[in-house]
Amino acid sequence: MVMFDMPLSELREYRPDRVEPSDFDEFWARTLAEARRHDIAAEFVAADSGLRTVDVFDVRFAGWNGERVAAWLLMPRRVDGPVPAVVEYVGYGSGRSLAHQRLFMSAAGFAHLVMDSRGQGSAWRPGVTPDPEPAPQTGQYPGFMTRGIDDPERYYYRRIMTDAARAVEAVRAHPGVDAQRVAVYGRSQGGGLALAAGALVPDVAAIVADVPFLCHYRRATEITDKTPYAEIAQYLKARRTDVERVFRTLSYFDGVNFAARATAPGQFGVGLMDDVCPPSTVFAAYNHYAGPKDICVWPYNGHEGGEVFQESDTLRFLNETLAPR
Amino acid sequence: MVMFDMPLSELREYRPDRVEPSDFDEFWARTLAEARRHDIAAEFVAADSGLRTVDVFDVRFAGWNGERVAAWLLMPRRVDGPVPAVVEYVGYGSGRSLAHQRLFMSAAGFAHLVMDSRGQGSAWRPGVTPDPEPAPQTGQYPGFMTRGIDDPERYYYRRIMTDAARAVEAVRAHPGVDAQRVAVYGRSQGGGLALAAGALVPDVAAIVADVPFLCHYRRATEITDKTPYAEIAQYLKARRTDVERVFRTLSYFDGVNFAARATAPGQFGVGLMDDVCPPSTVFAAYNHYAGPKDICVWPYNGHEGGEVFQESDTLRFLNETLAPR
Amino acid sequence: MVMFDMPLSELREYRPDRVEPSDFDEFWARTLAEARRHDIAAEFVAADSGLRTVDVFDVRFAGWNGERVAAWLLMPRRVDGPVPAVVEYVGYGSGRSLAHQRLFMSAAGFAHLVMDSRGQGSAWRPGVTPDPEPAPQTGQYPGFMTRGIDDPERYYYRRIMTDAARAVEAVRAHPGVDAQRVAVYGRSQGGGLALAAGALVPDVAAIVADVPFLCHYRRATEITDKTPYAEIAQYLKARRTDVERVFRTLSYFDGVNFAARATAPGQFGVGLMDDVCPPSTVFAAYNHYAGPKDICVWPYNGHEGGEVFQESDTLRFLNETLAPR
Amino acid sequence: MVMFDMPLSELREYRPDRVEPSDFDEFWARTLAEARRHDIAAEFVAADSGLRTVDVFDVRFAGWNGERVAAWLLMPRRVDGPVPAVVEYVGYGSGRSLAHQRLFMSAAGFAHLVMDSRGQGSAWRPGVTPDPEPAPQTGQYPGFMTRGIDDPERYYYRRIMTDAARAVEAVRAHPGVDAQRVAVYGRSQGGGLALAAGALVPDVAAIVADVPFLCHYRRATEITDKTPYAEIAQYLKARRTDVERVFRTLSYFDGVNFAARATAPGQFGVGLMDDVCPPSTVFAAYNHYAGPKDICVWPYNGHEGGEVFQESDTLRFLNETLAPR
Amino acid sequence: MVMFDMPLSELREYRPDRVEPSDFDEFWARTLAEARRHDIAAEFVAADSGLRTVDVFDVRFAGWNGERVAAWLLMPRRVDGPVPAVVEYVGYGSGRSLAHQRLFMSAAGFAHLVMDSRGQGSAWRPGVTPDPEPAPQTGQYPGFMTRGIDDPERYYYRRIMTDAARAVEAVRAHPGVDAQRVAVYGRSQGGGLALAAGALVPDVAAIVADVPFLCHYRRATEITDKTPYAEIAQYLKARRTDVERVFRTLSYFDGVNFAARATAPGQFGVGLMDDVCPPSTVFAAYNHYAGPKDICVWPYNGHEGGEVFQESDTLRFLNETLAPR
Amino acid sequence: MVMFDMPLSELREYRPDRVEPSDFDEFWARTLAEARRHDIAAEFVAADSGLRTVDVFDVRFAGWNGERVAAWLLMPRRVDGPVPAVVEYVGYGSGRSLAHQRLFMSAAGFAHLVMDSRGQGSAWRPGVTPDPEPAPQTGQYPGFMTRGIDDPERYYYRRIMTDAARAVEAVRAHPGVDAQRVAVYGRSQGGGLALAAGALVPDVAAIVADVPFLCHYRRATEITDKTPYAEIAQYLKARRTDVERVFRTLSYFDGVNFAARATAPGQFGVGLMDDVCPPSTVFAAYNHYAGPKDICVWPYNGHEGGEVFQESDTLRFLNETLAPR
Repeated sequence: MVMFDMPLSELREYRPDRVEPSDFDEFWARTLAEARRHDIAAEFVAADSGLRTVDVFDVRFAGWNGERVAAWLLMPRRVDGPVPAVVEYVGYGSGRSLAHQRLFMSAAGFAHLVMDSRGQGSAWRPGVTPDPEPAPQTGQYPGFMTRGIDDPERYYYRRIMTDAARAVEAVRAHPGVDAQRVAVYGRSQGGGLALAAGALVPDVAAIVADVPFLCHYRRATEITDKTPYAEIAQYLKARRTDVERVFRTLSYFDGVNFAARATAPGQFGVGLMDDVCPPSTVFAAYNHYAGPKDICVWPYNGHEGGEVFQESDTLRFLNETLAPR
Repeated sequence: MVMFDMPLSELREYRPDRVEPSDFDEFWARTLAEARRHDIAAEFVAADSGLRTVDVFDVRFAGWNGERVAAWLLMPRRVDGPVPAVVEYVGYGSGRSLAHQRLFMSAAGFAHLVMDSRGQGSAWRPGVTPDPEPAPQTGQYPGFMTRGIDDPERYYYRRIMTDAARAVEAVRAHPGVDAQRVAVYGRSQGGGLALAAGALVPDVAAIVADVPFLCHYRRATEITDKTPYAEIAQYLKARRTDVERVFRTLSYFDGVNFAARATAPGQFGVGLMDDVCPPSTVFAAYNHYAGPKDICVWPYNGHEGGEVFQESDTLRFLNETLAPR
Repeated sequence: MVMFDMPLSELREYRPDRVEPSDFDEFWARTLAEARRHDIAAEFVAADSGLRTVDVFDVRFAGWNGERVAAWLLMPRRVDGPVPAVVEYVGYGSGRSLAHQRLFMSAAGFAHLVMDSRGQGSAWRPGVTPDPEPAPQTGQYPGFMTRGIDDPERYYYRRIMTDAARAVEAVRAHPGVDAQRVAVYGRSQGGGLALAAGALVPDVAAIVADVPFLCHYRRATEITDKTPYAEIAQYLKARRTDVERVFRTLSYFDGVNFAARATAPGQFGVGLMDDVCPPSTVFAAYNHYAGPKDICVWPYNGHEGGEVFQESDTLRFLNETLAPR
Repeated sequence: MVMFDMPLSELREYRPDRVEPSDFDEFWARTLAEARRHDIAAEFVAADSGLRTVDVFDVRFAGWNGERVAAWLLMPRRVDGPVPAVVEYVGYGSGRSLAHQRLFMSAAGFAHLVMDSRGQGSAWRPGVTPDPEPAPQTGQYPGFMTRGIDDPERYYYRRIMTDAARAVEAVRAHPGVDAQRVAVYGRSQGGGLALAAGALVPDVAAIVADVPFLCHYRRATEITDKTPYAEIAQYLKARRTDVERVFRTLSYFDGVNFAARATAPGQFGVGLMDDVCPPSTVFAAYNHYAGPKDICVWPYNGHEGGEVFQESDTLRFLNETLAPR
Repeated sequence: MVMFDMPLSELREYRPDRVEPSDFDEFWARTLAEARRHDIAAEFVAADSGLRTVDVFDVRFAGWNGERVAAWLLMPRRVDGPVPAVVEYVGYGSGRSLAHQRLFMSAAGFAHLVMDSRGQGSAWRPGVTPDPEPAPQTGQYPGFMTRGIDDPERYYYRRIMTDAARAVEAVRAHPGVDAQRVAVYGRSQGGGLALAAGALVPDVAAIVADVPFLCHYRRATEITDKTPYAEIAQYLKARRTDVERVFRTLSYFDGVNFAARATAPGQFGVGLMDDVCPPSTVFAAYNHYAGPKDICVWPYNGHEGGEVFQESDTLRFLNETLAPR
Repeated sequence: MVMFDMPLSELREYRPDRVEPSDFDEFWARTLAEARRHDIAAEFVAADSGLRTVDVFDVRFAGWNGERVAAWLLMPRRVDGPVPAVVEYVGYGSGRSLAHQRLFMSAAGFAHLVMDSRGQGSAWRPGVTPDPEPAPQTGQYPGFMTRGIDDPERYYYRRIMTDAARAVEAVRAHPGVDAQRVAVYGRSQGGGLALAAGALVPDVAAIVADVPFLCHYRRATEITDKTPYAEIAQYLKARRTDVERVFRTLSYFDGVNFAARATAPGQFGVGLMDDVCPPSTVFAAYNHYAGPKDICVWPYNGHEGGEVFQESDTLRFLNETLAPR
């Protein structure tokens, strides 16, 4: 890849006008209120993972419409007292996988809840949570980006973002977790979900959005042809008359608008050669982010961003903001 | 492309053992009986297409589970008496499109019903028929090939194949159509659906399956990596432990098994360099086809097959079998 | 694809200086005068197409140098009185194909003449009209874009554009056609030829150029590497010293210059992600177009443009400008 | 690339039945007789190349139909007495280029005639010789492989193979050349032309066909999709009904048939991973070659074959067979 | 990918003759004896990783020629008594990365030594161990496969395989490790190194080679063109005369030959669509493996093999063979 | 390719600030002084090339650290008196090849020394000169661009640029060469080395840098992803924290800085569609070039530039500047 987007000096100043429907807050307040009519009913069933430094629980909790959403909870063994927790959302196409897929946060001493992505998990790392689609009005381009996109009420990301917000409630329901010290965290789609959950659950202690997806959709569809943003462009290629309707729906789910509502300390990561989540879409969210914030810039990286180096930075950031004992 | 599959002399003899569940016929009898509990309730609403040699009707009829399935009916104008009809199923990813997308069959003097493909039509030519998914148990690889593939009862193709069978009933409900002279027809996915509908509705007058898809799945997944068969392989790449379960489901929907039940005169088309629907998968169905049959072989063609030349052959075949006046 | 060319707001204003030789009009007047020394001698031989709503004629007429050019004429059956006509030119690499390839215009009630493209038709849809090359001075890059490009007198497009102009005369020679109501129409190369024929035959009733090719060559060769514009760049890659000579030749055949001479109502179509005929090359012609005009913009489409949706718009436009009965 | 064709042990035994028309010899005898009605009229005009160890002549001679074909003649300076000569034919798409493009043979002490390829030379290295096409009956796929392929009389390779044979006569017309010691030589297309010329001019002293093209066409079109063999497959993809006619034409121009008529010592080169001129097509010609012969096998090379190492082997072979002083 | 190699039934029987130099054992005995003249001098320096369930040590030990090789040692905290250990070798192009890159084995309760790959680690995950090349005789194709390939004494894999064997000695030097229970483990290149180390250090307790690289080189270079085996083919493409010399060198480093000397229980993993390490090269080693053995077959996977599912199987295998407390 | 870099009018003015370390001149003075402590010790051993117009010598001379560097010397036969000489450096990945690979300069009457590139020559045209790497501190991305890049003292190009400077001394040591008339010449990497050698050996008579590589590294890594500049970007993708260190090292080896020190007449060549050595990197060097200069611009060419046409221009330039007799 080359540096196909703006130069870094422009990115640092790039703060495009937000495209935000007037009822954005009302929409989400109503959405969460409906979801909360269902008790969170978090279940933690001990699982035999074969691991020895961590206890693994197979989790279920009530997500959107009360539907049961799966997760893993990894609790570091032999740690005293309630521990801070990290809720992680996973990348596009994946599910929660097996419990030993992600061991970093628990090894670092955090309770670690990995939320399954409803419907996803048949393209890469598997998941088990279905996404019952409520009365679709029409079809979708293969994938999840355009599932129910003709209507904000029925759009896929309304459901999974609601799940993401409720996952924070779920982890807080575990007795070993210190409910005041819960961070939301994710890479790519997970980063976009972390921005959403962090804005929708205002008392989270930290938000980490590494190479976040789900931000500044229209620009994304114009400057990259890589999946998954390209699913939107492909849909509009076939459904030529739906352009404005689609972007109206997406405005309810734009990480730029969530960022503008965040108050917790935030950490971003961005690769300047990222053609999956182009840097201008990441900086659009970062520059609108309303809380204290920092961003790690990786000039020669694509969508992988800083990887294990980013993780080191994130661990430092979480240790500061969550102050684990 | 090159001739990557068997040479023609082997293809002509290639008649692999059928993989067929013992309750195949029971499964489909039950499926159709359930569907037929809903009245076909075919509606034909005149549409303003701007065309002058053909009357266009926007059709709805009761498909699987009584769900309303869209179609176009094109009736050649100023033709006396009931006319023979051709029911067409469309290719993967497409919907019925606008009514003037397909004008060949009506120009040839046939009533022409073009069935929409539920859920599809957001990737290429648009459609309007949704596919409400009944209580999915898990996710799917993006696309339709693995939608509900963990259970034959919930598999996507159970629903659309039922739609396909009922579309024959729908066209017969139009007073201008001669119900004794109805052919089923399609290319690629449409060809696979024609085989299914032709086997499930035994009194159709002819079956045309051009470069048919949905045949001999296992071999297909082993010799081509082109979409859509590749969706199955991609799913199994992620869901490593589901291999046998997946192919058990697919055995209820294999064109090879439908072909073995067909009795109407059949015409096939095949491209010897077709890496989307490899020639051995087409010949597997053709060599098992139980009715009178012929196949048009296009040695240097891929999935496009004979295109307009194939259409000429098909028109000759339909004129013979349907004897339009 | 991405939006790699100018943004729409700039495209709407993009009106580059025309590169036009001083003897442009003289060149074409002389060219047509020479061609018209041959009687048009249009022949219409009834063909057995197997179709029932349309009469098909296999046409020959005198094109460039009096050479016989093939076409199909499709006349809607049972229509009273002379009908308006549409002359269609086809896309690069194709010929007229079989008669049932293109059924839209006749189904819409127009006499429809589909002109074969001399020499083309061995790469996709077949044709039958040869292109005897008059005393070539040197070679060409494979394809037609550089055939005789060293000299405007011998350039391939001089011959086929002359054919295109004469095709209007040919359709007018049919007794069932209303000579006052003839439109020229085409997509891609066909759109470029429609611009040429529309400018060279000033009394056509309408011009439709969908995603037109053959416009603003120099910019095209600098911003896209897709065939067929790339044939010119590839030729110049080998024939390094011929750059100015080549663009001088092309200036006689540039749709931008033809557009500036058009007087009939015109309709254009453009895809903003079209990397075959980039949007700035289409808008360059559109913004210079001298007659009444409109353009259909498809933001997420490539060279396919609006396809069947564009056809609906074109049908509305033709019904207005040709007022068929 | 991988070793996609037969293993070497099978290649060494691969001697497929020849597909040869009964009038092959008559066809070529008549073709050459017609050409020879035109005096060879070889002209050698001194050219200013800026070189100092070699004299360069710009050559013209009468090729097919007496048409003037260009060539370079490079004569090593300060060499006494008549020298042996090498006639070289060039690769597909190229022309003779500038005179200093190929300096090996003259540096080795041979008179070196490099024949231009009529019509070619606008895709890579330029040429100047046009190919006036005699009354084409229809079109061609872009390139030269299908130019006139509907009729052996009008096929492109009839003309250039005739040129190739006459080039030997041309070089013999130069007073500094020893007419008894003339070799024909080429790589790829040049190798195929060398086989043809070597068979048609039976008294050549040696034939060198390195990675020869123009051999065993039918198999080539079935096992590789690389240009230029692919031009034939692409043509047949569009012209579906011409398969047997095309291969009948090609049988008059197949290097396998020429090889079976060769008597001079021959040297071949082959790359076992060559997907442009697959090894089985080269061995088909080699194993039918009727004269004394050897073949250099390069196991890990594609179409580049042995390159400069092959040249060393070829120089040794030419020094032996031509015994230059 | 497709199933491009042998079908599974043939793979299970595929046991090609070994290509083994007569002094194979002598070569390695001498190589290891030389290396062992340097004391292992394992250093374990506590590192601040920010992790809380594991102690991390930055390791150095004496590898080939006594050169200091880096590694990480991860010791699960609060585990009593000496623990079994797993020595892991990493994939081609990577280094040991940061310590938290690989957390599975320590979370499972094993001491986990991750050896850096000398010279590698600038293409993906970084490393810090240089590879001083002893007096190269000539160049190499970019990468490591042909570094010093002209001579077994100087070949790169002689050095890193020696490092791999000594890494077992290094981990045994740690007081918390139970020296009788050390397994060697790796994926891809790491799997190849595990085979080598497991054969060279005969008292290891288990060998895990997941999708192993470095096996059956000659076949690999003939059936896949994917890196890194392709580096060998590319080298031979340039160095045409070195084919036999290169494969002679490689015979000293072939996993097939190491497998034939293994005595510990072994576990393999293989993807039937793996075009990086083709299944026949993996089965060649597996079928020659001399110890008790099992293989996990993933039919629809490429080089990723079973990933986290394979890890579960491996954990079961290690728990059985190492019996950790 | 398209014109992806600046338009020509901007390129002609593009003169970016030089990034130059303060000790640049001291660094190179010291480097050359150290090299010159070794006598040049040029050896010229007559080689049997089979050629007849040129004498070939297999050369060795003392390059960096006194290491023996190979070259070919081609002397035109039967030329009186000392002749001017051209020292040529070859393209990336190649070695000197066999002696008859490059015959142009000797055929033009110049003594022609072709320097081998240490370590290279296993990817394309072979070489024989090894590159013993002095105590590497860490690894490299496969290739030569990052070999020792962590330290200017150990960087690969320090060694080969020193070789390049000494190659001028080597050719001057031959009695048949006129030491006052020596030009340095190369394409791509060879062009970059010519700039370096021309600046480091101030009394060369001419410098020819055709499509030069090794110029303006930072911009190159940002606008192209083609090898070999991409090796630097790939290295930085893995070694994320080394960005500034790497570009500091490269500043000692930047053709822009060498160009600013050149005094001899210079000729450049550039392709405006060159994505290997983008035109802005070439013009950056050209516009800083301090001697008399000219540049040949090839608008539709990529990295091939003007090829044989460029050679003609270069021959004219050399004849003027070297005035051969």
